[in-house]
Amino acid sequence: MPKVFVIMGSKSDLPVVEKALAVFDKLKISYGVAVASAHRTPRRVEELVKGSDADVFVGVAGMSAALPGVIASFTNKPVIGVPVSGKLELDALLSVVQMPPGIPVAAVGLDRGENAAILAAEMLGIGDPSLTERLVAYREEMADRVIEDSEQVVSNVGC
Amino acid sequence: MPKVFVIMGSKSDLPVVEKALAVFDKLKISYGVAVASAHRTPRRVEELVKGSDADVFVGVAGMSAALPGVIASFTNKPVIGVPVSGKLELDALLSVVQMPPGIPVAAVGLDRGENAAILAAEMLGIGDPSLTERLVAYREEMADRVIEDSEQVVSNVGC
Amino acid sequence: MPKVFVIMGSKSDLPVVEKALAVFDKLKISYGVAVASAHRTPRRVEELVKGSDADVFVGVAGMSAALPGVIASFTNKPVIGVPVSGKLELDALLSVVQMPPGIPVAAVGLDRGENAAILAAEMLGIGDPSLTERLVAYREEMADRVIEDSEQVVSNVGC
Amino acid sequence: MPKVFVIMGSKSDLPVVEKALAVFDKLKISYGVAVASAHRTPRRVEELVKGSDADVFVGVAGMSAALPGVIASFTNKPVIGVPVSGKLELDALLSVVQMPPGIPVAAVGLDRGENAAILAAEMLGIGDPSLTERLVAYREEMADRVIEDSEQVVSNVGC
Amino acid sequence: MPKVFVIMGSKSDLPVVEKALAVFDKLKISYGVAVASAHRTPRRVEELVKGSDADVFVGVAGMSAALPGVIASFTNKPVIGVPVSGKLELDALLSVVQMPPGIPVAAVGLDRGENAAILAAEMLGIGDPSLTERLVAYREEMADRVIEDSEQVVSNVGC
Amino acid sequence: MPKVFVIMGSKSDLPVVEKALAVFDKLKISYGVAVASAHRTPRRVEELVKGSDADVFVGVAGMSAALPGVIASFTNKPVIGVPVSGKLELDALLSVVQMPPGIPVAAVGLDRGENAAILAAEMLGIGDPSLTERLVAYREEMADRVIEDSEQVVSNVGC
Amino acid sequence: MPKVFVIMGSKSDLPVVEKALAVFDKLKISYGVAVASAHRTPRRVEELVKGSDADVFVGVAGMSAALPGVIASFTNKPVIGVPVSGKLELDALLSVVQMPPGIPVAAVGLDRGENAAILAAEMLGIGDPSLTERLVAYREEMADRVIEDSEQVVSNVGC
Amino acid sequence: MPKVFVIMGSKSDLPVVEKALAVFDKLKISYGVAVASAHRTPRRVEELVKGSDADVFVGVAGMSAALPGVIASFTNKPVIGVPVSGKLELDALLSVVQMPPGIPVAAVGLDRGENAAILAAEMLGIGDPSLTERLVAYREEMADRVIEDSEQVVSNVGC
Repeated sequence: MPKVFVIMGSKSDLPVVEKALAVFDKLKISYGVAVASAHRTPRRVEELVKGSDADVFVGVAGMSAALPGVIASFTNKPVIGVPVSGKLELDALLSVVQMPPGIPVAAVGLDRGENAAILAAEMLGIGDPSLTERLVAYREEMADRVIEDSEQVVSNVGC
Repeated sequence: MPKVFVIMGSKSDLPVVEKALAVFDKLKISYGVAVASAHRTPRRVEELVKGSDADVFVGVAGMSAALPGVIASFTNKPVIGVPVSGKLELDALLSVVQMPPGIPVAAVGLDRGENAAILAAEMLGIGDPSLTERLVAYREEMADRVIEDSEQVVSNVGC
Repeated sequence: MPKVFVIMGSKSDLPVVEKALAVFDKLKISYGVAVASAHRTPRRVEELVKGSDADVFVGVAGMSAALPGVIASFTNKPVIGVPVSGKLELDALLSVVQMPPGIPVAAVGLDRGENAAILAAEMLGIGDPSLTERLVAYREEMADRVIEDSEQVVSNVGC
Repeated sequence: MPKVFVIMGSKSDLPVVEKALAVFDKLKISYGVAVASAHRTPRRVEELVKGSDADVFVGVAGMSAALPGVIASFTNKPVIGVPVSGKLELDALLSVVQMPPGIPVAAVGLDRGENAAILAAEMLGIGDPSLTERLVAYREEMADRVIEDSEQVVSNVGC
Repeated sequence: MPKVFVIMGSKSDLPVVEKALAVFDKLKISYGVAVASAHRTPRRVEELVKGSDADVFVGVAGMSAALPGVIASFTNKPVIGVPVSGKLELDALLSVVQMPPGIPVAAVGLDRGENAAILAAEMLGIGDPSLTERLVAYREEMADRVIEDSEQVVSNVGC
Repeated sequence: MPKVFVIMGSKSDLPVVEKALAVFDKLKISYGVAVASAHRTPRRVEELVKGSDADVFVGVAGMSAALPGVIASFTNKPVIGVPVSGKLELDALLSVVQMPPGIPVAAVGLDRGENAAILAAEMLGIGDPSLTERLVAYREEMADRVIEDSEQVVSNVGC
Repeated sequence: MPKVFVIMGSKSDLPVVEKALAVFDKLKISYGVAVASAHRTPRRVEELVKGSDADVFVGVAGMSAALPGVIASFTNKPVIGVPVSGKLELDALLSVVQMPPGIPVAAVGLDRGENAAILAAEMLGIGDPSLTERLVAYREEMADRVIEDSEQVVSNVGC
Repeated sequence: MPKVFVIMGSKSDLPVVEKALAVFDKLKISYGVAVASAHRTPRRVEELVKGSDADVFVGVAGMSAALPGVIASFTNKPVIGVPVSGKLELDALLSVVQMPPGIPVAAVGLDRGENAAILAAEMLGIGDPSLTERLVAYREEMADRVIEDSEQVVSNVGC
């Protein structure tokens, strides 16, 4: 049974979704994925959301990105929204983050699929100490990479 | 049986809606109105749209204004979207106008309820010559008012 | 006699127009096209609009995209405006959508020629049930494609 | 022991925070609050975050709103960021939402304190069915209010 | 015979126009004014422009401010465009300044009626040395006022 | 003696300037050009402007494009400003157009060198009927090209 | 002999300047002030800058805020730019910060006169340990106030 | 002992940093560099800043660019912030420049590493006349290059 359900509005959003899946794999979090459009297949979004036992939903969409908000309208589970970049970046970003009072979406930055996955992991980690441990290890790796990058830059620049 | 069905996302959008209703009254176009939120009452939006015989729908909403697009997802009738101004005008405007390929919304300007009504009248006028006559008269009145305004300004300015 | 008349401000807008024409062909809607500039050939725009019996007009233009509004100033038929993307996307988008009270333009998103055509079809469908049937079929195809895309993504991702 | 810890960057952010606290009270979620500035008192932010057992953090800040991101840098718990409106709304909104890969913040809309609280409740509800029940009741109340508003608007408008 | 013809899109633009008229009076430049809307009275704009012997035109308009560009489409005289502020300042500003190749408008800043008048005076001054002398005197007055302001500020501040 | 003096802020602005020079050549208007930076060579800008007998100045610059405004501070002749596109189009555009009261710049659109030249021709044409005749011919050519483009598009599209 | 010279583009910028002067007084830093416009009195700006022995300059201006950049063109001392808010906040902000390569301005936020003063103090403190001590004390006061605010908020909220 | 310490948020910011280092080399200013992330390695930023005797800090970062502000929170030395361009230029720019009252960052333009270095040189030059001399020579070179460019353009254009 997947813990996180990722719905993308269009097949073309897959590269952003794949950033999330890589993180889920690394953190050993089960997930499901689907393509479903808030506008072209509204009922399907409702059925997918209501038919899922996932603890966290992720909606990935561009332009007037209604999908994360529509997912949120059908569940009381947390919904993370990932705006996908296009011609007018602000359209997707504002559509995802500027939700009306009462039905929040947890927006991450443009094309930030990996951050949606980490945020989902943090939510699931509230009740799962072993997941939190994997998260801690993941962040230590990130921090170590910063330090390695720094050493490499310093030796390149020669100061 | 109302020709146009106006759905507003929140009671606070009423002043924008009233601009449309005044035009409908003047042009003798029957209408229905309702408050229904794409996010708080998603099923209700679907039921209202599917249960209506209106020829044109108008969706009025602010912020991440998903309502017009959600109405459009449930009908093949034309849907006019009116973005309502707030703290960040671009959020509602872009959410309404930047619809994905396949499911258009006919966006009018910020808070332009009266233009939504005139646009609906133009659509209905395609098959109703008497309505087009009333539209012609309405535009002549507008044009006359511009000329009166001009005369008044010229006499005030004294040139 | 064409049902829809598409006027583009410049020959360079043709790729956006062609998205509309493909939809008209598919939905069996007759159309005419012309290049006419609101600024370089203002009289020509007036003559084309007044000389046409089309039920719906589509204006396609970039930058300070005055063309859809100028078309609207010469007709009581609905006018759909398609802003064309350029260096500053917001210029064409806002010029098309932010029309003054009294003379609406039905704006669709940046470069959304296909949505202009679908919107025109919805307007014409008010009085033409057979066209509405073709629209219903068109949307079912779109919805089917979403489901196929979903199955393909799921099998690719392997979850 | 508070479940949620709300840190605001300045005392002037209190009206936005109070919207969150009202929701926490209604949903019976314990919370703590503090004023701490990412720029004026950076160590204090670190100490507050590391010294807290909260399951969810909320950071509320305006302008170059670094606070939610700085909170996120010190914890593996989910951090919700609330941008506070000011002269240039986009500064706070973009600072909160556009986090770099690896350290997400769950952004809600401008001044949307109540949505931060509901989002926190949804996160906590993953492991707490009774809280989810209270959330369901809360959303039903919201939906009922939409229907009441609709009835009132319809009777006012008289259609 | 007026040297400059000022056309405003709506009576509500009068306060911006009056800034221009005050400068014309001071610089002893004759002018005419009219209200004419590019969208509500398109023919009237054409007739006013073609029927005028003015050497410079000024178009003043808000929102999708097509008026200056439409004036420019009917004359080879220079056209100055003044965008009028509203809810979305960028709409009028970009509509006025982003003209297509071939038909320029000389844009001044938001609500800058006085600058439109000074620019018109500079254009007329090319062939009129006495007007240039009045402009020189006007600018000296402005410069003197800056110096007086400076003295006053220094004495207030006490440094 | 050149009628128009074109100053560009950087050699990299030359492609935009060349659009202007082509129009000057076609309309038989004499011109001078120079590179001078408002920030790197402020005195040189002053000397070039004060040492020139040109009737119209054109300033071409990108980013915080102060050059047109600085030219305007040293002359009572009309100054046309051409913002040059870059990473943030709005910076150059707003810097050029948003001049303070008293010292106008006649802004044209982003990279619109040709429009700066036509605008200069219109200004010079106020006192030079033969130049106005050349302008009229130039605009007729443009209009003819629109009609040719239209015929070509119609025959391509086949409607 | 003043250490810092503050030039504002218009008397109306005084409220922003006064925020800076209050900080200079508190930190015991001598200063001079003047009103001088980059556009209305360009020579005066040059004379003031070249005639001053100040170690740091502050330029305060709105709209197409050329003043800080023009100051920077006449000195090798650091120049701090304070954009002043108006109708279009981005115009002043981008004009100040987006300086071309070679002539930097140190931009602070919209209307942030106090931050310009603190930044000037930090620059002067490089060679003046006693000033740095006063800065340290100033920041401690700020931090103490944050803690007091926090205590007050906690006791008000009652958690 | 380095006079300037440059911290970049990510190794990918190196091209912007290298523009600064080239200027430091030319002006004979000693420097250190490091990669440290405000979000991934917050403690490391604190340790680097507190452990450095540099007189000026430079923070280089993109997206919600918190790094310069976080550096500023740990030192009373001047901090220069360089926003790095990305998908949404305004995010980094506004995050860097819109600092709250009390903790300024000296913002330069997008990707303007060279300007950060010149600004640092100007600050250090307050107490170092020989450095100011090198700065004067550097600016003269820049001015000479403008004049050479001008001559080359004039001879190319042939006017």
